[in-house]
Amino acid sequence: MEVEDFGHHISRRFNEDLENIRSAVLKMGGLVEEQLDRALQALSQADSELGLKVAHDDYKVNELEVEIDEECSRILATRAPAAIDLRLIVAVIKTITDLERVGDEAEKIGFLSARLASADNASNNYRELRNLARHVTQMLHRTLDAFARLDAKEALEIVKSDEDVDQEYEAIYRQSITFMMEDPRSISRVMDLTWAARALERIGDHAKNICEYVIYMVHGKDIRHVNLDTVEENVVGGGG
Amino acid sequence: MEVEDFGHHISRRFNEDLENIRSAVLKMGGLVEEQLDRALQALSQADSELGLKVAHDDYKVNELEVEIDEECSRILATRAPAAIDLRLIVAVIKTITDLERVGDEAEKIGFLSARLASADNASNNYRELRNLARHVTQMLHRTLDAFARLDAKEALEIVKSDEDVDQEYEAIYRQSITFMMEDPRSISRVMDLTWAARALERIGDHAKNICEYVIYMVHGKDIRHVNLDTVEENVVGGGG
Repeated sequence: MEVEDFGHHISRRFNEDLENIRSAVLKMGGLVEEQLDRALQALSQADSELGLKVAHDDYKVNELEVEIDEECSRILATRAPAAIDLRLIVAVIKTITDLERVGDEAEKIGFLSARLASADNASNNYRELRNLARHVTQMLHRTLDAFARLDAKEALEIVKSDEDVDQEYEAIYRQSITFMMEDPRSISRVMDLTWAARALERIGDHAKNICEYVIYMVHGKDIRHVNLDTVEENVVGGGG
Repeated sequence: MEVEDFGHHISRRFNEDLENIRSAVLKMGGLVEEQLDRALQALSQADSELGLKVAHDDYKVNELEVEIDEECSRILATRAPAAIDLRLIVAVIKTITDLERVGDEAEKIGFLSARLASADNASNNYRELRNLARHVTQMLHRTLDAFARLDAKEALEIVKSDEDVDQEYEAIYRQSITFMMEDPRSISRVMDLTWAARALERIGDHAKNICEYVIYMVHGKDIRHVNLDTVEENVVGGGG
């Protein structure tokens, strides 16, 4: 329903602008997802070459961010959008910042994979992170879907699921400390794995941020830093 | 010179809007600086109560972010700003996101300080981080000054200095690994200190981001992800 709200402008050219900007964000999101997938593949297969390739390719994400940013400024300057259109543009400006930082975290995982590939037991690297990686990858994918469909209810579900990601990360962190104490020779390797886990946890945070912008875009409500029960009443009650 | 450019609008009310929004950002910046100072004080004095107080007070930063965000949307919707005014608003929307995340990092340092306060050798905690902390605190302060004076040249200097912060952080990180290998009983404590160092390093990143928005605001040039020598030519050549 809400998706169609963007289709009722007097200016057809304006509709196209808004549609183009949404497509560009989804294209950027797809690229970021691909970067993350390849970084995790590099990690699981101890493929140092792929890890470095992912890190190198981060510039493509950055280029898209700058392009979309310029397009948003152009639309703001020439169309002076209001209400939901203005919220869309503001949400896009914020969303691409978070997507770019997801790209940075994927880049980091790429570098860490390259370094970890030469460690002993490299094939074991991924095992400890597998669940967290799967969880965060899904979270990012659902986030981009919620953005595409302007689905505020789904966005709220994703915001809530970030707590699980945080808990999984904490568990990995505590386990890392135990590993390092038991075998001090593993410290370098375990620290690198902990950083990779941390990067995944941060990707979860960025996905959560984007979901908050989706809710803001649809309902005009800023739910950051607000108790989630209150939000639920508003978003679900509001028929979003 | 550039500061005065904001003072030549036909609508006096609009001038006031823009001035108010800049003041609000500087107020938020001052609060964030205060949070960071107190978090570092908690760390250096092993004051767990102060650490928790800092973490608790993060909501004040968040409230200011939401307020300024709403005000930006209101100005965009009612004044349809163009050129440098539009760039100011877009830069503010981005700046407060980074300031809020500096607040989050200060909150993290607050929590870590509280936990570290009960560790052995708590009084030694701060020594290893002192230089990095001083460097980052200064960087944040200079950043807010550059924002206040719309000083693109100074902003570029700050962007460049982020590399030093990164190097200091890397040195602390490598040293941490050595410490942990030498004394596995210290692992928990050293890990917490490494996270605090990491939080400082990230604050440096956020300061750098804000400086990039200052340059964009003044010159209309997006210097993110661009070779710094090219930028220097443009910014210095452009008389900023």
